[in-house]
Amino acid sequence: MRPMDDQEARRVLRQIFDAAVASAAPGPAVLRNLPDKPKGRCIVVGAGKASAAMAAALDEAWSDVDVSGVVVTRYGHAVPAGRIEILQASHPVPDEMSATAARRILSAVQGLRPDDLVIALISGGGSALLALPAGDMTLADKQAVNRALLASGATITEMNAVRKHLSSIKGGRLAAPAAPAGVVTLVISDVPGDDPAAIASGPTVPDPSTIEEVREIVARYRLELPEAAKRVLEQGFETPKPGAFKTDVRLIAAPSLALAAAAEAARTAGFTPLILGDAIEGESRELGTIMAGIAKSVQLNGHPIPSPAVLLSGGETTVTIGQGPAGRGGRNTEFLLGFAIAMAGQSGIWAVAGDSDGIDGTEDAAGALVGPDTLVRARAAGCDPRHHLVAHDSDSLVDATGDLIRTGPTLTNVNDIRAILIT
Amino acid sequence: MRPMDDQEARRVLRQIFDAAVASAAPGPAVLRNLPDKPKGRCIVVGAGKASAAMAAALDEAWSDVDVSGVVVTRYGHAVPAGRIEILQASHPVPDEMSATAARRILSAVQGLRPDDLVIALISGGGSALLALPAGDMTLADKQAVNRALLASGATITEMNAVRKHLSSIKGGRLAAPAAPAGVVTLVISDVPGDDPAAIASGPTVPDPSTIEEVREIVARYRLELPEAAKRVLEQGFETPKPGAFKTDVRLIAAPSLALAAAAEAARTAGFTPLILGDAIEGESRELGTIMAGIAKSVQLNGHPIPSPAVLLSGGETTVTIGQGPAGRGGRNTEFLLGFAIAMAGQSGIWAVAGDSDGIDGTEDAAGALVGPDTLVRARAAGCDPRHHLVAHDSDSLVDATGDLIRTGPTLTNVNDIRAILIT
Repeated sequence: MRPMDDQEARRVLRQIFDAAVASAAPGPAVLRNLPDKPKGRCIVVGAGKASAAMAAALDEAWSDVDVSGVVVTRYGHAVPAGRIEILQASHPVPDEMSATAARRILSAVQGLRPDDLVIALISGGGSALLALPAGDMTLADKQAVNRALLASGATITEMNAVRKHLSSIKGGRLAAPAAPAGVVTLVISDVPGDDPAAIASGPTVPDPSTIEEVREIVARYRLELPEAAKRVLEQGFETPKPGAFKTDVRLIAAPSLALAAAAEAARTAGFTPLILGDAIEGESRELGTIMAGIAKSVQLNGHPIPSPAVLLSGGETTVTIGQGPAGRGGRNTEFLLGFAIAMAGQSGIWAVAGDSDGIDGTEDAAGALVGPDTLVRARAAGCDPRHHLVAHDSDSLVDATGDLIRTGPTLTNVNDIRAILIT
Repeated sequence: MRPMDDQEARRVLRQIFDAAVASAAPGPAVLRNLPDKPKGRCIVVGAGKASAAMAAALDEAWSDVDVSGVVVTRYGHAVPAGRIEILQASHPVPDEMSATAARRILSAVQGLRPDDLVIALISGGGSALLALPAGDMTLADKQAVNRALLASGATITEMNAVRKHLSSIKGGRLAAPAAPAGVVTLVISDVPGDDPAAIASGPTVPDPSTIEEVREIVARYRLELPEAAKRVLEQGFETPKPGAFKTDVRLIAAPSLALAAAAEAARTAGFTPLILGDAIEGESRELGTIMAGIAKSVQLNGHPIPSPAVLLSGGETTVTIGQGPAGRGGRNTEFLLGFAIAMAGQSGIWAVAGDSDGIDGTEDAAGALVGPDTLVRARAAGCDPRHHLVAHDSDSLVDATGDLIRTGPTLTNVNDIRAILIT
């Protein structure tokens, strides 16, 4: 492969990042995955940060269908959706609007006919936005259950089994009353593994876990539950099991799909893509150092793949703030600064990282790009790279070098996208 | 692939680790890479932690050749080597024995004939063990130069250029006087990239860097050099350039070769190996978290490779001790504890990590093995995994579970070996 100049490498990486984010755009993802139009009515329900944007696309595309419905999104994430009503509720801690939304959505799917179709639009955050505790549990009871679960050492699967059995809408309970109408669920995933039963606690997905298992989990971890929750479990409020209703769940956007789109863009640009994982966790700056080691190995030894190559990864890393004031830094720019310092100006390697929701940390930037000359340009701009890393002030450095990426909020979320280009 | 039981997975991982360490064993590596026997004398010289063990193998194998010579190793690393004399010197800070050894080695290669053969045995640590400052520089002057270089921001290539021009034995100066005898260099590498000119500063490898470049580096970084060093550079003490003598350099053991041996062992056991890099750096526990993310992706999504697979990596990670007392923990066991905590008992995944020199940190263990039941067994033994991680007390935990690997000192070093088995 001919040597790449800096501009060209950055252009390719930006194309890769943009392709990943575009794959998760709610409207186009809905349009790519619509089922056949129903003869009868179409009832649209849903919950999540992207649900309003998803609903708007559906309303516009199916202007010739009898569409109605109601979806709930996070405060600030509402966009007009024509015939579909948009409610807003609190995230990540649910408020009373979550219960109101859940009741409205449950009543919207009652009394349907075989020719009708329910479309459920589910995305990240949907669990908090659709909170309808079972029996006479209050929101405070539900939160007490969550705290007990988080402190218990139970696995995420066990926690979800308990939560679904204490909810009037999760674990398939939204889909069951829609019969005899069909239910199609369009899912934007932000959880590792993309299990539709896990995203927003699967309101339209049958639940294989049983009330007996939940009682066993409560006993094993000695969970201290509120009285109202105990009564729900005593009464045996079982979730719909697989086979109870027909379900058609379509994953329309996800970290894994975003990385696949990024891989396709890399291939088109002449690079061999390698996806390392869609749910990589760990300290951002350390991931930078470690990815630098892998990138150098590609360039030097052809492991894990020969160059020209693009290493791709997703998931959310962590920035641990120690003592002392922290500067302007998102987890993606801190990853990139750690990466650039570890690369020490080595030629032929560039990297991009950003949050697919367009907001890396608190600043109005999605992420940034770095290359072999980043440290030199930072020093020329008066920045000491190590100082910026120690002070968690990575945004200021890539702002000074002009390398921030600003997309604005994208109203979707498939976590972070990182790509390293090696010539 | 059929499900593996815990014992079988651990047996396979131990085979993989042992194969990597065995590939770096000095004696066998020398015997695999010997040149044709000379008609005349064989002069053996060398420096490094493994040089005595390498010399011993050569002495025994070539009992019918007129072998003599002298090599220098680190205090405590000497083993008897028959006709080859073993000197010992200080590492990592050189002492006067380093200069004595360098003078003895230089005089051993004088006055040779075309039928004679010089074999140079080079391994990690050789740079400190062969310190002969040029001109009237003292060891203190040499150390002052090193301090100035490390504080300057110069690249490792630039630092090596300066060092070679201020030494009477580095940068090919050991090989030049051996002419007309041939010189074969057998190298055990512990540096990223395995560049023979970088290992022990390449005493038998021609040096492409020039005195003009060195003067330019001194000026650019405003290096404050001792007067004796300045005089050496003014007088223009040039190193032998490529083409100045015939050189035959053989890399006989290296992190990359150890990983290749591990990969072959994995393949034999029915697993697809993937080498992520032979020089991975970063905080040990964070590498554990990040590798857990990659391992889960292999199991769940088939990226970067489908299971059954083994992920391999090498290099040296870091353990940063904060405030408070630190317990018993090497960087490999801390990596493994971070990994086990991030895996949270997920089934079907095991890991091994250890130092190829047989000493992980200060304890008498090379490393350890962990699997899905490690945390459960640790808790049963009274260990709180998170507490052991915070307290840098990972060795105590894997000792309590019986999972430490004890090989004893191996007298070689190709850094750490990590393998993750995914079914």
